[in-house]
Amino acid sequence: MTVQNSNISIAIIGTGALGGYYGARLAHAGFETHFVLHSDYQHVQKHGLKVESIHGDFSIPSPSIWPDVESLPPCDILCLSLKSTANAAILPYLKSKVKPHGVLLVLQNGLGIEETVFAHTQATVIGGLCFLCSNKVGPGHIRHIDYGDIRLGALQNDSQHTMWLERLQDIFTKSGIGIHRAKNLRQARWQKLVWNIPFNGLSVVLQADTQQMMQEESGRALAEALMREVVQAANADGCSIDNTFIERMLADTERMAPYLPSMRLDYDRHQKMEIEAIYSAPIDIASQVGYSMTLTRQLRDQLIFLQIKQRHFKENT
Amino acid sequence: MTVQNSNISIAIIGTGALGGYYGARLAHAGFETHFVLHSDYQHVQKHGLKVESIHGDFSIPSPSIWPDVESLPPCDILCLSLKSTANAAILPYLKSKVKPHGVLLVLQNGLGIEETVFAHTQATVIGGLCFLCSNKVGPGHIRHIDYGDIRLGALQNDSQHTMWLERLQDIFTKSGIGIHRAKNLRQARWQKLVWNIPFNGLSVVLQADTQQMMQEESGRALAEALMREVVQAANADGCSIDNTFIERMLADTERMAPYLPSMRLDYDRHQKMEIEAIYSAPIDIASQVGYSMTLTRQLRDQLIFLQIKQRHFKENT
Repeated sequence: MTVQNSNISIAIIGTGALGGYYGARLAHAGFETHFVLHSDYQHVQKHGLKVESIHGDFSIPSPSIWPDVESLPPCDILCLSLKSTANAAILPYLKSKVKPHGVLLVLQNGLGIEETVFAHTQATVIGGLCFLCSNKVGPGHIRHIDYGDIRLGALQNDSQHTMWLERLQDIFTKSGIGIHRAKNLRQARWQKLVWNIPFNGLSVVLQADTQQMMQEESGRALAEALMREVVQAANADGCSIDNTFIERMLADTERMAPYLPSMRLDYDRHQKMEIEAIYSAPIDIASQVGYSMTLTRQLRDQLIFLQIKQRHFKENT
Repeated sequence: MTVQNSNISIAIIGTGALGGYYGARLAHAGFETHFVLHSDYQHVQKHGLKVESIHGDFSIPSPSIWPDVESLPPCDILCLSLKSTANAAILPYLKSKVKPHGVLLVLQNGLGIEETVFAHTQATVIGGLCFLCSNKVGPGHIRHIDYGDIRLGALQNDSQHTMWLERLQDIFTKSGIGIHRAKNLRQARWQKLVWNIPFNGLSVVLQADTQQMMQEESGRALAEALMREVVQAANADGCSIDNTFIERMLADTERMAPYLPSMRLDYDRHQKMEIEAIYSAPIDIASQVGYSMTLTRQLRDQLIFLQIKQRHFKENT
């Protein structure tokens, strides 16, 4: 393990399938990396972090770990890699945990989270769109299945943001993580929603994986209609995404191995789904620019209903 | 049992929860009533028809029964009380089974069925909207739970239709079935869809009964948005239904005992759902007058997907 850039400290807030993977890569490359863990804390303290990866397995035997954000030391880079449903609880701590001139890196789904993080910190905020297939298969045990690149985009276009974009690109690239740059963070976020809005929600409501949906005319029609609505909302919000993007997304999804989106995994585990970040935030933002996402709203309300019903039933059993 | 109007013959095409109930009432009142039965034929031949009703139980020990429409003798009144999903198979027989100057009475859900029946028969066609809670609890065994009135409306406004409206009202009233007149059949059918489109489909997709839906803000919002769309489609199709009708429907549904619509029962029994009659026909008719029922289409496509998936899984198990 070679130590590089030892003067930069990184915090991974949320050591799950995503944060655990990227954090372990950064630590493995020698960067000072601190992990915030909850339920896995005891186990990782004893056994460290393990990563099985398509690029080769590795482990971090003695990572620097913290049981909560409160106890974390201030760092230069705070990676938000926990589920967006937990954001409300950690937002108040971020300002005191990022060092002066540090950066917040938002590695979450949704829309408008960078703006919220900025409002709480007044710090440099960069968004990272992760194209990663990974699972947490046990405490501190990550299985990296496919992909893994991150698309970075800055919330603002000032020199501080540009400097951090370059540094992050350097750090992640040195850690073996492919980095791309998004010219327009908002557009990149909307583009990711073009996939996430149909396939996350439909996988729950239809109880089907991506392949089953793409095989049926009805499933494909549902996905495509939602995609068109998301593109129209994005364009109403100042982006310029054309319909060839939809065709490409559909073709890519058709070629993919059968896949269950994260929302479906959350639902199956009776965990809170990211309805707010993936559905309500885009619906509200589109509504503010005069576009009504009616199909997305119908799907969102179905998800809210199913989430409540599941909790109800859980209590009753 | 008194015999009245013995010169009038009635055929009940489809002796299920609905046709079995109304047919038994007509036979019980002494009208010549012929029942078409499939799976229950042998049982009813031996044991007759039994009705448990909130208005008092009764039975028809030796009803006139027929194993299919082909064998049925021509009658003055043909009641179409089978599921609309079976219409394609029986439409070709109707012309030869209705006596000259007879009438077709369509006791089904959906939109545009009377027009289709007329196209096949050139006969007098009357639509009946049934407000009935009944179940078939065994072969030839009907349980009448609540309600039971029928709203009658003529497909055309000529003297033949008017004469049959009056005769049907007389016959059904004498049999203990409450009859109301719809001034405008098309509007009455759309009004029924204002309830059927949201609650039938959502009960399947959300796996919930009417009470669960009405208790949750999300369920209520889903129902209301669909209702608004159906009202707009109806008005585009020449009706005039105002939004107070929606408020009344919602309030009525809220007061109802928890209820599983027929589509949910069909789905749970792995039977074909009435997607064509309740969803696709209204979507197409609205589309022809320039109104796009986008929310209804999304729900329809979800139902088509779930139906196919269920059949797939059935085959695979």
